[in-house]
Amino acid sequence: MDTRTGLPVVGMVGGGQLARMTHQAAISLGQSLRILATAPDDGAALVAADVHVGHHTDLDALRAFAKGCDVVTFDHEHVPTGHIEALAGEGHRVAPSAAALRYAQDKRAMRERLGELGVPVPRWGPAGSAAAVADFAAGSWPVVAKAVSGGYDGRGVWLVGESDEVPEVELIVEERVPLRRELAAVVARSPFGQVAAYPVVETVQRAGICVEVLAPAPGLDPELAAQAHALAIRLAAELDVVGLLAVELFDTGDGLVVNELAMRPHNSGHWTIEGARTSQFEQHLRAVLDYPLGDTGLTAPAVAMANVLGGPPGGMALDERVHHLFAADPSIKLHLYGKQLRPGRKIGHVTALGVSMESVRARAVRAARWLREGTW
Amino acid sequence: MDTRTGLPVVGMVGGGQLARMTHQAAISLGQSLRILATAPDDGAALVAADVHVGHHTDLDALRAFAKGCDVVTFDHEHVPTGHIEALAGEGHRVAPSAAALRYAQDKRAMRERLGELGVPVPRWGPAGSAAAVADFAAGSWPVVAKAVSGGYDGRGVWLVGESDEVPEVELIVEERVPLRRELAAVVARSPFGQVAAYPVVETVQRAGICVEVLAPAPGLDPELAAQAHALAIRLAAELDVVGLLAVELFDTGDGLVVNELAMRPHNSGHWTIEGARTSQFEQHLRAVLDYPLGDTGLTAPAVAMANVLGGPPGGMALDERVHHLFAADPSIKLHLYGKQLRPGRKIGHVTALGVSMESVRARAVRAARWLREGTW
Repeated sequence: MDTRTGLPVVGMVGGGQLARMTHQAAISLGQSLRILATAPDDGAALVAADVHVGHHTDLDALRAFAKGCDVVTFDHEHVPTGHIEALAGEGHRVAPSAAALRYAQDKRAMRERLGELGVPVPRWGPAGSAAAVADFAAGSWPVVAKAVSGGYDGRGVWLVGESDEVPEVELIVEERVPLRRELAAVVARSPFGQVAAYPVVETVQRAGICVEVLAPAPGLDPELAAQAHALAIRLAAELDVVGLLAVELFDTGDGLVVNELAMRPHNSGHWTIEGARTSQFEQHLRAVLDYPLGDTGLTAPAVAMANVLGGPPGGMALDERVHHLFAADPSIKLHLYGKQLRPGRKIGHVTALGVSMESVRARAVRAARWLREGTW
Repeated sequence: MDTRTGLPVVGMVGGGQLARMTHQAAISLGQSLRILATAPDDGAALVAADVHVGHHTDLDALRAFAKGCDVVTFDHEHVPTGHIEALAGEGHRVAPSAAALRYAQDKRAMRERLGELGVPVPRWGPAGSAAAVADFAAGSWPVVAKAVSGGYDGRGVWLVGESDEVPEVELIVEERVPLRRELAAVVARSPFGQVAAYPVVETVQRAGICVEVLAPAPGLDPELAAQAHALAIRLAAELDVVGLLAVELFDTGDGLVVNELAMRPHNSGHWTIEGARTSQFEQHLRAVLDYPLGDTGLTAPAVAMANVLGGPPGGMALDERVHHLFAADPSIKLHLYGKQLRPGRKIGHVTALGVSMESVRARAVRAARWLREGTW
């Protein structure tokens, strides 16, 4: 509890854009997010008042950070399970718990658990060696190799052909699922057990990186949307998630298959800042604090989010690009993360809202391309 | 320019809720608002990374603060004109300029200038003494006495009857305007000269404090709305305002009369955070940075904002009241300012959005009352 305001203190481990945007949401709730950043120029550390600098693998840093927090939560999956258990064992509230977060940290554990729950997943297997991968493929290449832990944003996932080398990290291997498109179902769950579900969205990936999110998923069969909701809500309860749960799904044309799980604000929910009555960042705070959850309804019939990636070096400065963007589209909503530009790095996102998905998608894509490349 | 991000640094003098909410908007633009707070526990200082502690009447503090800012702006009207001129003279960009801000700082100068411009204002006069007030009243009591400078939120304004004592500060005196209701027109203007106008709102005052804002003003004659827009746009240009200009208006039933001017984000624009495509806080940043201005359109047909005032001491803790509020209305949007509770002090606001003004107004008023009094 912050004695100056009488309001709770949430600590978030990790100082990236998710913490940055969660801090924005915390401010409205009268709070100031406490952030454990690895460096003082992390995106969230640049904008927050209550910043600890320390590494998320350093248990002493985590302990010092947790002191005085009403609850500790995460902007990424990289905190060792043992450390989270240690914090909880010392009386700190941690959300999600180590037991839940394990299924977002360890893809093998996740696949096994989903299998036990009878949830559809791609055909998969553990893969200790190149020979095991070849056995799994059984002549049917390519297959998908995934690092068991530590991957994000397309890292830690490889499409492996017959003549490709197999990365030397702990792997699982999966069939390459033929798919119509990718969907995501984001829900929040509180310790009380309340669950709130956002409209199911379509996510568009390029080179393993999410580049667009369309809310609601255009043309989605209501029956399939209901299945996705039911699946995400069930998983949140079965895995005892507290906070957000993002379920990445493959729409195979013949049903839904779970691709990945994340237990934190997620790129597939950035559109909610303007596009939903309650943003995923506020919702995550409400969930981990056991506040009643907020309205997940859309604020416009069609919402499109496009990620802004760092483009080739040179050309017009970012600030000047922002000027031109605002002149070209006075309604576009911009979110920049305070990051150094680096080709391919997510440095922000844009959101367009309106009535026609075709139009808002075109606006978001155009804005993101302009910011990245300096060409319309 | 922030060399870490390549994006501009805006400095805001004053660490209250306006700076707090402007910082939230700055984060989206990739920026981190620099704040000159009088104390480290000012509402904005609790949540921002780049906080200087110093007084806005201390020129050396202002100079140190302005160094490295791309532009300096204000969360209140209390910076001495001479100090603002000194900063500008030393090469700092300041928005609005001292010459413009004078008309928001000095009510006599404002009344004189509006008179020169032929803008309708209440009948008024300078009032150096109780005798001058009585002369002005000429038997027609009560009259309105206003401190020439330093007033805000109902302070510095007195309804004076025949037998009342006249406050011993520099005053102007005005007729008490018979009015149907109060309106406000908020516009933004950039150095380039672009002006963007928000929908005209109705403001509801109690004891001189704004308690509700209804957007758009219910049942407003389009002709009157156009007049209010034209007036605010003209004043922004004539007074060479850079940033936001809020024009408080009396709707007399027989035309519009200007009550007050403010040149900063304003309580009558808090509804824009969720209720307009561009919040007044983002718009103020865009204006002072000479970015093209954002879309001022409504996001819902009816938006109501109610201020949350500190209630009587005792009763349920604020955090617990928030729990109950969120349970009762999952769609209400809450903004708490990180302030100590004190009876009558603005500690936050709530916003409700929907289709029916009657319904959103009832929701906002009910939420604000609950937070203040702990009763529904």
